[in-house]
Order: sequence, then C-alpha cells, then structure tokens
Amino acid sequence: MFFHKQELQYNATPDKPDAVFARKLQEVIGGQYGEITVAMQYSFQAWNAHMPGKYRDMLFGIGAEEFGHVEMLATMVAQLLEKAPLGITDDAVQSDPTVAAVIGGTDVQAAIVAGAGVRPVDSNGNPWQGSYVTASGNLLADFTANANAEMQGRLQVARLYHMTDDHGVRDMLSFLLARDTMHQNQWIAAAQELREEGAEDLPVPSNFPLNKEKREVAYQYLNFSDGAAAAEGSWAGGPTPDGKGEFSYADGPTTSAPMPPPTHPDARFFGTTELPNLVEKTAGAVQDKLHKE
Amino acid sequence: MFFHKQELQYNATPDKPDAVFARKLQEVIGGQYGEITVAMQYSFQAWNAHMPGKYRDMLFGIGAEEFGHVEMLATMVAQLLEKAPLGITDDAVQSDPTVAAVIGGTDVQAAIVAGAGVRPVDSNGNPWQGSYVTASGNLLADFTANANAEMQGRLQVARLYHMTDDHGVRDMLSFLLARDTMHQNQWIAAAQELREEGAEDLPVPSNFPLNKEKREVAYQYLNFSDGAAAAEGSWAGGPTPDGKGEFSYADGPTTSAPMPPPTHPDARFFGTTELPNLVEKTAGAVQDKLHKE
Amino acid sequence: MFFHKQELQYNATPDKPDAVFARKLQEVIGGQYGEITVAMQYSFQAWNAHMPGKYRDMLFGIGAEEFGHVEMLATMVAQLLEKAPLGITDDAVQSDPTVAAVIGGTDVQAAIVAGAGVRPVDSNGNPWQGSYVTASGNLLADFTANANAEMQGRLQVARLYHMTDDHGVRDMLSFLLARDTMHQNQWIAAAQELREEGAEDLPVPSNFPLNKEKREVAYQYLNFSDGAAAAEGSWAGGPTPDGKGEFSYADGPTTSAPMPPPTHPDARFFGTTELPNLVEKTAGAVQDKLHKE
Amino acid sequence: MFFHKQELQYNATPDKPDAVFARKLQEVIGGQYGEITVAMQYSFQAWNAHMPGKYRDMLFGIGAEEFGHVEMLATMVAQLLEKAPLGITDDAVQSDPTVAAVIGGTDVQAAIVAGAGVRPVDSNGNPWQGSYVTASGNLLADFTANANAEMQGRLQVARLYHMTDDHGVRDMLSFLLARDTMHQNQWIAAAQELREEGAEDLPVPSNFPLNKEKREVAYQYLNFSDGAAAAEGSWAGGPTPDGKGEFSYADGPTTSAPMPPPTHPDARFFGTTELPNLVEKTAGAVQDKLHKE
Amino acid sequence: MFFHKQELQYNATPDKPDAVFARKLQEVIGGQYGEITVAMQYSFQAWNAHMPGKYRDMLFGIGAEEFGHVEMLATMVAQLLEKAPLGITDDAVQSDPTVAAVIGGTDVQAAIVAGAGVRPVDSNGNPWQGSYVTASGNLLADFTANANAEMQGRLQVARLYHMTDDHGVRDMLSFLLARDTMHQNQWIAAAQELREEGAEDLPVPSNFPLNKEKREVAYQYLNFSDGAAAAEGSWAGGPTPDGKGEFSYADGPTTSAPMPPPTHPDARFFGTTELPNLVEKTAGAVQDKLHKE
Amino acid sequence: MFFHKQELQYNATPDKPDAVFARKLQEVIGGQYGEITVAMQYSFQAWNAHMPGKYRDMLFGIGAEEFGHVEMLATMVAQLLEKAPLGITDDAVQSDPTVAAVIGGTDVQAAIVAGAGVRPVDSNGNPWQGSYVTASGNLLADFTANANAEMQGRLQVARLYHMTDDHGVRDMLSFLLARDTMHQNQWIAAAQELREEGAEDLPVPSNFPLNKEKREVAYQYLNFSDGAAAAEGSWAGGPTPDGKGEFSYADGPTTSAPMPPPTHPDARFFGTTELPNLVEKTAGAVQDKLHKE
Repeated sequence: MFFHKQELQYNATPDKPDAVFARKLQEVIGGQYGEITVAMQYSFQAWNAHMPGKYRDMLFGIGAEEFGHVEMLATMVAQLLEKAPLGITDDAVQSDPTVAAVIGGTDVQAAIVAGAGVRPVDSNGNPWQGSYVTASGNLLADFTANANAEMQGRLQVARLYHMTDDHGVRDMLSFLLARDTMHQNQWIAAAQELREEGAEDLPVPSNFPLNKEKREVAYQYLNFSDGAAAAEGSWAGGPTPDGKGEFSYADGPTTSAPMPPPTHPDARFFGTTELPNLVEKTAGAVQDKLHKE
Repeated sequence: MFFHKQELQYNATPDKPDAVFARKLQEVIGGQYGEITVAMQYSFQAWNAHMPGKYRDMLFGIGAEEFGHVEMLATMVAQLLEKAPLGITDDAVQSDPTVAAVIGGTDVQAAIVAGAGVRPVDSNGNPWQGSYVTASGNLLADFTANANAEMQGRLQVARLYHMTDDHGVRDMLSFLLARDTMHQNQWIAAAQELREEGAEDLPVPSNFPLNKEKREVAYQYLNFSDGAAAAEGSWAGGPTPDGKGEFSYADGPTTSAPMPPPTHPDARFFGTTELPNLVEKTAGAVQDKLHKE
Repeated sequence: MFFHKQELQYNATPDKPDAVFARKLQEVIGGQYGEITVAMQYSFQAWNAHMPGKYRDMLFGIGAEEFGHVEMLATMVAQLLEKAPLGITDDAVQSDPTVAAVIGGTDVQAAIVAGAGVRPVDSNGNPWQGSYVTASGNLLADFTANANAEMQGRLQVARLYHMTDDHGVRDMLSFLLARDTMHQNQWIAAAQELREEGAEDLPVPSNFPLNKEKREVAYQYLNFSDGAAAAEGSWAGGPTPDGKGEFSYADGPTTSAPMPPPTHPDARFFGTTELPNLVEKTAGAVQDKLHKE
Repeated sequence: MFFHKQELQYNATPDKPDAVFARKLQEVIGGQYGEITVAMQYSFQAWNAHMPGKYRDMLFGIGAEEFGHVEMLATMVAQLLEKAPLGITDDAVQSDPTVAAVIGGTDVQAAIVAGAGVRPVDSNGNPWQGSYVTASGNLLADFTANANAEMQGRLQVARLYHMTDDHGVRDMLSFLLARDTMHQNQWIAAAQELREEGAEDLPVPSNFPLNKEKREVAYQYLNFSDGAAAAEGSWAGGPTPDGKGEFSYADGPTTSAPMPPPTHPDARFFGTTELPNLVEKTAGAVQDKLHKE
Repeated sequence: MFFHKQELQYNATPDKPDAVFARKLQEVIGGQYGEITVAMQYSFQAWNAHMPGKYRDMLFGIGAEEFGHVEMLATMVAQLLEKAPLGITDDAVQSDPTVAAVIGGTDVQAAIVAGAGVRPVDSNGNPWQGSYVTASGNLLADFTANANAEMQGRLQVARLYHMTDDHGVRDMLSFLLARDTMHQNQWIAAAQELREEGAEDLPVPSNFPLNKEKREVAYQYLNFSDGAAAAEGSWAGGPTPDGKGEFSYADGPTTSAPMPPPTHPDARFFGTTELPNLVEKTAGAVQDKLHKE
Repeated sequence: MFFHKQELQYNATPDKPDAVFARKLQEVIGGQYGEITVAMQYSFQAWNAHMPGKYRDMLFGIGAEEFGHVEMLATMVAQLLEKAPLGITDDAVQSDPTVAAVIGGTDVQAAIVAGAGVRPVDSNGNPWQGSYVTASGNLLADFTANANAEMQGRLQVARLYHMTDDHGVRDMLSFLLARDTMHQNQWIAAAQELREEGAEDLPVPSNFPLNKEKREVAYQYLNFSDGAAAAEGSWAGGPTPDGKGEFSYADGPTTSAPMPPPTHPDARFFGTTELPNLVEKTAGAVQDKLHKE
C-alpha cells in the first residue's frame, strides 16, 4: 500500500514564471529516463522480486521516494506555468517578438489540454510509456539498468541546471542531483553485493551453463568497421571482467555460413516467386484448389 | 558507409517449422532489447561520439556486427514460418486441436501482413521504436546502458533456448549467447577504461561541479517503505563506489518542505477555483474583458 | 454507408494566415479529445450497440456530424497555413525576429510532410490513435465517456478562442462551442433516460449481482493522504447517488492483508533468488537437466 | 511524498496457477482504464488543482489508494504465473494439446521479458501510456472523466470475474468491484457538489460567456443519419440538463456554408495545382527564383 | 459534410460465429493498410488538395465509400463475436482443448474491453494511428501511395479469404476484393492522367529544377551488396522511366568523402571528450564559469 | 552480414551551425519516409524475398546504401548542432529575441537527451517505428510502396532544400535528391519488369482467381460525394490498366444490403440491451447462474 503526505521532500518553488523551462522539465518527469520511469521500474522490480529481504526492501523504499520526486517536479512545473505567457491574446504578446519567441518554445498542450498544468509527457510532448520500464526478474541485469537510468537522469538534470538561472529551480535541481548521486552509487554497490554473495554473476544470466554457448567466440572482439584503433582497447586483449576468459581481437568475422535459400511459403500467401510458370505446373494441385475452393 | 555481404555470421537453419517459436524469436529482433535496438544504439552513439579513436571505432565495429545479427534472426524466422501451419484452411487444421492450438500462439500478422515473413516488431507485435535507443554523448552512461542491453538480451536468449528443442535453432542461439557474453564483458571493460583514463568518472556526469549539488543528501539511503532489511545492504553504510563519500541510512526522509499553495492561472483557461464569487468580484476586469473581447 | 456533400456545416474561413494557430487547432482535430475521436467513438459505439432504436440512431446521427466537424477544422487549418511563413528561405524571414519567432511555434511537419496541409495529429504532432476511443457495449458507461469528451472538447475550444482574435476563426469556434453545449446536454440527458427506463443503472454494470462484491467497503471513503478536508465532502457521509447505500469516512484503509511471499518461477527463467546454494542442492535435478538438455 | 507499507489492502492469492488469466488481468493493471491510469490521473489532477481543500485532499487520498490497487493486481499476476506452464520445453507440454492451447493464450513477453513476471502493459501487450490520463484543471470535466473511468473499470472487472472460477482471484475481484462502486458514487457526488456550490456548472466550462457561442444551434439535435427513432429521445425536445435551453430536433443540418476554394501554398512546397501552364506564366518570378537560388 | 444511411454497401453476415477470424479481420479494419487508413488518407488528401475538379471530387467520392467499408467490416466482426466462446467460464470451455485453443487465438480485449465488440485496432491489438496516413499535397506521390495501399489491402483480403470457409464471410470478402481491384486500377489510371496532363511528372516533385540535383549520380545503380545479379535488371542499363536519362551500373559507390571530425559541443552538455586534461586547461574559462555560475 | 567503412558516400559538412534546420533534417532521418524507413524496408523485403537473383540482390544492394544515407544525415545533424545556441544560459541568449526565437524552434531533446546529438526521431520528436515498414512478400505491391517512399522522400528533401541557404547543406541535399531520382526510376522499372516477366501483374495479387471476386463491381467508379467532375476522369470510362476490364461510372452505390440486426452477446459482458425486463424473464437461467456461480 502507498500513503501520501501533503509535504514535499524538498523546496520546489521558482523565483519567476518560465513556461519554456517548464516544458524542458517535463523531460525528467515523463521522459524515457524521467522520474515516472524510475518510480515504476523500481516498483515493478519489487513486485517481480523472487526473494524477500534487503534487495526487495530497498526496491520498495527507493520506488516510493521516486514517486515523491514526480510530485516535486510536477509542483514546480505548475508554478512555472502559473503566470507565464501561454498564448492568451494580449496586446503585449502580439507586438513583442521576445514574448512571441518565448511562447514558440512552450508546450502548447500544457495550455490547451492542461490549462497551464503538468502532464505525464516528455519535453516534446510524447506520452510516457510502459516500454521505458525494465523489470526482468534478474537482479544483476536490472540493477545495471537502474544504474544507467540514474546516470542518464543525472546527466539530463545537469544539462537542465545550465539552462536556467532561476535560483528556486536550481535549488530544487541541486537536491535531485544529489539524490541521483546517491542512487548511482547505490545500484553499483548493490550489483557488486549480488556478485560477492554469489546470487548472480557475469555473464548474466550466470546460471545458464556456459558449455551450451559457442565458447570459441565468447571473448573475441570482431571488428566489422575499418577503424584500426578498436584494437587498442582493453576489450581486445587481456583478462575479461567475468574472470572466465581472455579477450582476443579479429579484424572481421571469424565464422561465416552461406545464406539459406529463399523460402517458398504456401502459394495462398501470394508472395512473388521466381518461377511462375514452373509453379503453375508443379503446383497444379494447389492452383486447382485455389480455383475450386 | 555500410556494405552488405550475402553470407551469415553463423548457421541459421531450423530442423523443422515452428511458427510459435518464430513469434517468440521476434522479441530479440524487434523488442526493447532486440538486435535492432543494439545495432541502432551503437550506431547512434558512434555518430554522436565527441572523439575519434578506440571508443568510436569500437562502436562502429560492433554496431555493424549487430545489424548482421538482425539478419541471422530474420533469416531464421522466415524459415521457421515457411512450412508451418498459419491458418490457411485445411481439413487437418480444422479438426486437430493441437494444430489449432499452435496457430493460436502464432503472430497472425506474420501471415496476414508479411505472407509468412519476418517483421520489425516484438513477440507481441508491438513495432520497434526509436525510443528504445540511448545515445547521450556521455560514454560512461551509455556504456552502462549497453552493458544492461547485453544482459537483458542474453537473458532473453537463454530463456528462448529453453523454449525449443530444435537443434538448428539452439545452435544459432548458442552463437548469440556467446556473442552476448563477449559484449557484456566488452562494455564493462570499456566503462572501466574510461574511468581509469580519467575521461569520465562517477557520479555521471563527473564534470558537473559537486559543490553545486546538495551534498548533505548525496550518500543517504532514505527508506520510504517499512522493510527494515534495507539497512543491511552495502548501500546503507561504508564507502561509496565513487570514492567520494560514505553511505548512511535514514528511516524516511531527512528533509521536507511545505507543499506550495495551488496555482491560479489566467481565468481564460477555465480551471476550477475555490472562490468563484470572489473571483467574480476581484477579477471583474478580466470577466468584463471575457465578455467584450 | 456514408455519403459526402461538398458543403461545410458552417463558415470556416480565417481573416488572415496564422500557422501558429493552425498548429494549435490540430489539437481539436487529432488530439485525445479532438473531432476524430468523437466521430470514431460514436460510430464504434453504434456498431457495437446491442439494440436498435433511438440510442443507436442517435449515435449514428451524431457520429456523422462529427466527421463533418473534422472537415470544417481541416479546411480551416489548410487556409491558415496557405500564405503563412513556414520556413521557406526569404530575406524577410532571416532578419526579422518576429517572423522567426512565429515559425518557431509552427508544426514543422505541416510544411515538410504535408506541404502546408492538415494532418491527423494533435498540436504537438502526436498521431491520432485508436486507443482514444471508448466503446464498451455498456451505454451508461459510454454515454458518460461521451459527456466527458464533449466537456474536455468544449474546454479546449474555449481556450483556443482566447488564443486568437481572428474574426473568421472565432466565428467558426463559436459554432463548435454551441454544438459542444448541445452534445454535453445530449449525453447527460441520454444517460438519465437509460436510468429512468431501467436499461442500466448505477453502479455500472448494474446487472452484476451486488452480493458478489465485498459490500462492506462499497461506500467507504478511505483517506490514503493526510488532508483532513476530504472528510467534508458529500462523499464522506449521507446517501449515495446509486441509492443503494450510505457513504462513510475512514482515515486510511479498513482492511489489510499480509503481502504474499515472493514467487519462485522455474529456474530456467534465470531470475535471481535468495538461496543460490540451496537451489543448487535441492534443485539438482533441474540443474542437471539444464546442463544435459 | 509517498510512503510504502509492505501490506496489501486486501487478499491477493490465487488458488492455482493460470497464465492465461494472468494475461487478462493485465488489462486492469496497464490498460486504458487500468489501475495505473486512475492512480496517475487522480495524482495529476491533484497537482494541477487550483484550490486547496476537500476536492484536492480527496484526489490525493484516492490517488494513493489506486497505486495500492496496482500493487494488489501485480502481486496476483506474479503468483498466477509462478507455477504455470509458460513454454519451457517439457514432454507434457509438447504432447498435450490442452497445455499447448493454454500457452497459446498467454502473454509470451511475461515469460521472455519478465521471467514470469508482471509488466506495465495491457492484456494485448500494449505498454501503458500517458495519453490515457485526463487532467484539465476543470474539475467538473475531470470528475466526469473519473466517473467514466470507474464505470469502464468496474465493467472490465465484472467481465473478468466471469472468466475465472478461481476462488482466490474472485475474492480479490469482489473487493475491487466494491471499491469501484464506491468510486463511481464518489465522483458523481463530487460533480454534483461542484454544481451546487457554484464552482462549476453545465455547459463546461461554465465561465465562458454564452453570448460568444452560436446560441441558435446550442440545443438542436441534428440528425445526420436516417434513423427516425432519434427523434424519440429526451434530447430531441424538452428542457436541457444545463437548465438554460430547450431541446429541438432537425432532420439534418440547419446551417451550411460553401466549401472555400482549395488553397495554393508557395510553389516551393511542390504541391500539385490545377494550372501548371498558368502557374508557369504568372508565377514566373517564383520559377526564376527556384532556378537561380 | 458526411451523411449516414443505415444500409450496408453489401452483405456482411457470417454463417457462424468465429472469434479467431474476427480477430484476423481487425487487420483490414484498423491495421496499417486497413479501411480506416484509406478512408482517412483519401479524405485528408482531399482537404489538402490544391485544385478543384475531377481529382478532388474523386478523392471525396472514394473516401466516403471507404468509411462505409469500415462499417461493413465492423458489422461483420460484431456478428462473428456474438455467439462465439470468448472465455466466459463454462464447463465445456474448461475441458475441451479445441475450445480452449480457439479462445487462445482470439483478441482478449474484444471481450474484456468491448464486450464482444469491434475496436479500431489491428489483428494484434495495436491501435490504429494517424501516422499510417499519407497526404503530401503532391498528387503523383500520393496516388502512388494510394495504389500501394490498395495492393497491400487486396493482398491481405486475399490471404484472409483462404483462412476461412464461412460462405457469408467469403461473400463479403469477394466484394471487397473487387472494389480493391477497381481502386488499384483507378489510382494507376489517375497517376497516368496526371502525367499526361503535365500536372506532375517523374521524378516527383517534377517542378524542382533538375540542375539543382547532383545529376552525375541520378541514374546510377550502386551495388552495396555482393549479389552480382543486380546488374541484370532493367535498372542497370537502358532508358529510365522518367525519360530523362540512362541507367548505369556500378559495383559499389562512385563517390566518397572523408568522415568529418567528431563534434565538440559546449562542455555543459557533459559529453565525453578525448582530452579531458586538455579541455580542462584550454577551456579553463568555461570550467571556471561552471563552478561560479 | 554488414560491414562499415569510416567514409561517407558524399560530403556532409555545413557552412555554419543551425539547430532549427537540424531539427527539420530529423524528418528525413527518423520520419515516416526517412532514410531509416527505406533502409529497413528494403532489408526486410530482401529477408522475406521468395526467390534468389536480381530482385533480391538489388534489395540488399540498395538497403545497404540507405543505411549509409542515415549516416550522412546523422553526421550532418551533429555538426549543425555543434556550436548552435541550444538554451545554455548565456547573457546574449537571454536578451536577444532572435536567439530566443531560434531556440524556440529547436528540438529540446537534442540538447537535453542527446547532448547536442542526433536521435532516431522525426522533426517533431516522434520516435521512428517499425510500423513505417512495408514488406509483404509480394514484390509488385512492395515495389509500388518503395516508389511511393522515394517520391515522398524526394518531395521532403526538395522542401528542405528551400528552407536553408547553407551551401554545405544544400550540397548534401543535392546528392540525396539525385539518389532519390535514381531510386524512383529504379522501383518503377523493377515493377514494370515484374509485370513483363509474368512474375506478378495487376490486380495484385494476380494469382488470386478473379472468378472469386464480385466481378460486377470490379471496374465501377462509385461516387459517394456530390462532385460531378469525378465523371470526367480516365477512371470513369475506357479500358483499365490491368487490361482486364472497362471502367464505368455510377453516381452512388450500385448495391446495398440491409444492416443486420444488433448483436446480443452473452449477458455476462453486461452490454446494454433494449429489453431488460424481457431478458430478465427469458434469460432467467443465465441470471440465476450469475447469482449462484
């Protein structure tokens, strides 16, 4: 169960209206790596978790925090829009190119659809979608997904920080940046802990028997481009992070197979085949059937 | 530029038709973590790369390989569908519940739309979409995204391996599993190399000045659920992976702020406000304007 | 069958070009609550209707009218775009910030994709989609959906009215506003008529036996937030609109259940479990199978 | 802020595994009218609310409850999948048409992507999306949207109730049915209260001056189909629910306007026009420019 | 304006229920090349047409016919679902694998969401979307799009014809097949007429001055794969369909350019660059700014 | 397999930064008719081809070229964004309306999400999607789809050409225009060759027996609008392009059928029916069952 408290985790009040920045903030609300994504992702991972204890407790704990971040940002967006010019006909708006320019950069649906309100969309107005969520049941894979989400999220917040000089907005972003620092560290620590405890290891899924994969190509870097510098990386030689092999380098594929012949599905799918005359003869029965059916 | 060669990187021929499994294979072609995603993701990361050399060469090299994996899987799907029952009216199909059952589990669009062919969709028929791609320009973030993609990808292939006993299919999957092992190791090695070279570090983005984030909450685990075991994790105490702090644990938030008052946008957005009478009086000018405009 | 007549239901000619407003008008063409939505929604409800007579006749009648509204708006958008600056290189455009600002607020796809034409998208360029349509077969539910659609639609048109001072546009909008007034009243009247005739009642679906729902919690307001004022509403006490109960108020849940233990699916899904060692032992057979299969 | 408690609001344990029903339950989790929709919808309405007090408190209160419903259903789905056949190769599965049939009706992504887990998608695997949410700032419109959502939701749960005979599942559904009964009543009561308090009225938005709409057509039923019975409804005569007019009936439109002439945008959009020769002559300057630019 | 008549253009009554086929029919209602697509496409092309007369009249005429085809198919789907098993708990359903198999192949949302009704979706449940529509303003391009749509549409109907032996369904499909035959011929004739009248020609857009394109490569077949047979086609030699050139063949590209150096955006986007130390030094001012801002 | 070479097919370097134009170029990268679409479309057609030889070799050859076009455009976009104002706080930006106006016309996600990078989206930020691809297995249909794609593509590039005066950009576009000229000609030539060889003919699919379609209506133009000029077209009389009939003209439908009665699905779908009392009586057993189940 979830319980709501009418307080925010941190200050979320801008100094002044700014509808253009409100639109940009939508990215970290309803974008691919926005707060809705992480709130949902951690919650679904908790619901799909296969063991009780510290990992699941942590998923529930941080998932609920992230819903509160959605709320902080939503509250901020509503205030940034509150007194901002949004296209309502006013003399000033019509004649002042600066104001017109500003309106051109706003999310017009914030005005038309939400009446100067926040919406579950990204900064281009694409609705948030469930396909942003990763929750596979394999915790090493999922914690890596989470580390990535927090990295992309902090990166976006850092960019947004430099797109405003509003002290109120920056104050709130400084809080989110710090929480993202925490969460990056947290997922990396948790992933490491999984490996140390032997619950999961590289390569994911570590339970799949290695003798069932084609081990000959399991540590080869195969260069399908013509950039020679790829041979200089740590992935082209030396021990592998999973501790189970040794990297090697090859310029191009080390295996190949002839392409199988084209398929010839049932004639009643009406695909184009190479031998219409032949088909007509050899597949006479089918053709007859086509006409009689 | 890309050049195509009419050979496959590895065998991709099934022992027998299986339209249900063909549908399942679509997941690793056109799903969130399918081969189209990684081929596109690595290519866009290369095009957005801000430096020449080993990292970009590697992105180009592996990106091109992944397009070849799309091709292997596409070739396999077409063959699995070639002679399989797909709903064409035949006596056997009508009366045999097993055949009917099989058809019930196929992708009907593979028959109706593609004529027993492969499509750029996932195993539920959702079209592949560009929002599956991550290419931020920050390589530590993106390589972590890539490691996750290869983990989720290998996990799905391992599950698919246990959903068929066709030797031809399993042979191909054993190759893909090994390449995913390579690529997991590769991205982890590359991420580590970035940190060792000082090109990027934790927390991402490492160039953003830490004094601009609210450092007080940068390493606190805040428990917004009631699971006590979250305090037992490595994220609740001890040094942090970024080497810049010390984890601490708090049961709930350590900060809070009153929720700002509700907003009151321009009356011409026709939102519902608490004091219609008052608004009528104080906002008389606006009301007059509304009627006269 | 549908028949088309090359007349409009009302005037749809602007005084002057305005590509920014053309973009905004797209909302009520191809948006969530645009005219395509209601035209399709009423038509699908008619096709799914389970009785002949006044309700179905009315659904067909109003559905066809709404397709005509799509046409009025489409005609208007094409004219608003006709002579407006849309980014074609001209000296004036390059040097005049007002013109540049205006172009910044237009839908660039109206120019690039449609050649200064209308498209089935909303004001942010999101394509119209079938998931905007509601047609459940239950008319009380669906007429309520329709009342909502007409309310949201009239609200958006009213906002748009105040975003332009073009007399031609406002003239057309004044017509649409009036039709939305009609349609709001119509759906509310029809919903009321359904209840009076006994065809359907609250709670929807009224045919479902009430003794099969957990009646104890059927009229309790449960407050999962900490706002005390929720107890002051008519939903916290007194008779209920369905005439079958009495509202009551509770601060938080009145029931609870322990969370079931985490699931343990087949090991071949490779989820992370709490006891890898134990699993290895007890699930020896499975592990063996994994390696031998 | 949101806080999570590791208890469910009600029992959510099935008697036995059933992956087909698990798929169906996804509809009321991640579908258009699933619990994610109402949880998000009420929360965004609260964040966009323009007044403190009972309405907003109630939106927060019920929004948080709905997130808990997502959790109950997610927990149920995970258990229904736990021991169910999901396509893993087993002798029984291969030869038993009943089992094969069952698997054909499951969501294959539940197995391949989530490892026998729940996902934020509907019963056909379409990801949940932000465009399901309505939060306009106008409470009479939005409460009508909410009443509709609860009606569609209860309708779907009632249908699902008759698609299973599992006592555990039915027990949980009986609880959700009762809560939907409450919420239908609640939104209808709240909408009525808004009207009685004068905060909002019909037609929505009631603040928009009626003299600005084309009042002549504000209460006319216009029959664009040939079903005569539409004249028998309460919408074809008598007083209107908004108390401001009288319904009338007309067989077809009462207004019409000639279709404006086709548009002729700039020649550099390369649309096809009726007079290529003429254009060549009269638009010589443009043509010259085309070639010289 | 559109007017509706409560008659169908042709018979649309099945011999018997068939929910699986109902699902398949959804493809030609709400799929990429279904009747909603062509109805909308022709209508939007008419609204975007830049000349009165035969072409626009024809677009309006056929557009309205296609809306009637949506209706025929919708009516058919509702009847196919009417008495079909859709998962309601019945003894027979539980024990008969054939029935279970059938249900596995149905669209579960047809039952849960639409109550045994039709929906604006394709055969996999993907909602119809506005991005299926093409309406560019250039009639030669658009008529070619239309010819393709009618070809794909007739192809799908032909496949569906062989997936049922219901005489009622086949009767209706035989009508749709004939209309698609007409419409294929119609668009090809219309495209030819445009060229003969000089309104438009190849290459589209024919008004764009050819001296502004890189004519050297305008008729070269460039073989980026290793299949030698591509040289045997009519596209590898001889006159070109636009009558303005001569095809030639080259094995690979005839031009190339060095890849430009990687970009170096503003440091405040926090992309990873090759020379962090150097950047630190040379971009000292920026770094200082970062810290002081 | 695909191999990558670090060269471009042609120059792709702009004279100066232009973030607004970069956004517009996204249309021909990730839009409905962008280069990703054609690259994918030709590749999937090749993988679904049912015969070896010239057609498939050509599909592979041109498919690989198109991936290289994606690369050219991606490289161009990154450079257009490199030094352009993208919203980073600078004094100049704040006070200069022209700069503000420019930023208003950019894709904000290019800055926030990609760090001044290219993304797989269109000019409105809609992600590219697999549903843009057509690959049916019938080559005459698909080559017509391809001709259309190249026409729409060249049309969009021609429009973009006139939206910039940057010589570097125009130079690249002149190359793409020429290649589109080639590809239009190529697909038309290939379609003609298919017909001449007898591999496929009109109407598509030509293998479907014509005696199974309702031949009476196979060549009738039926005018469902009131525009008389439609009778003047070549589609209203004379021989048909498929050489198998003669066009005729009819003002409206030549066939009609009564609309079947509304459906009455199982009562447990809770649809609204016309005779609740009657249903109660006659369907007593069902009602009883409802209550007892």
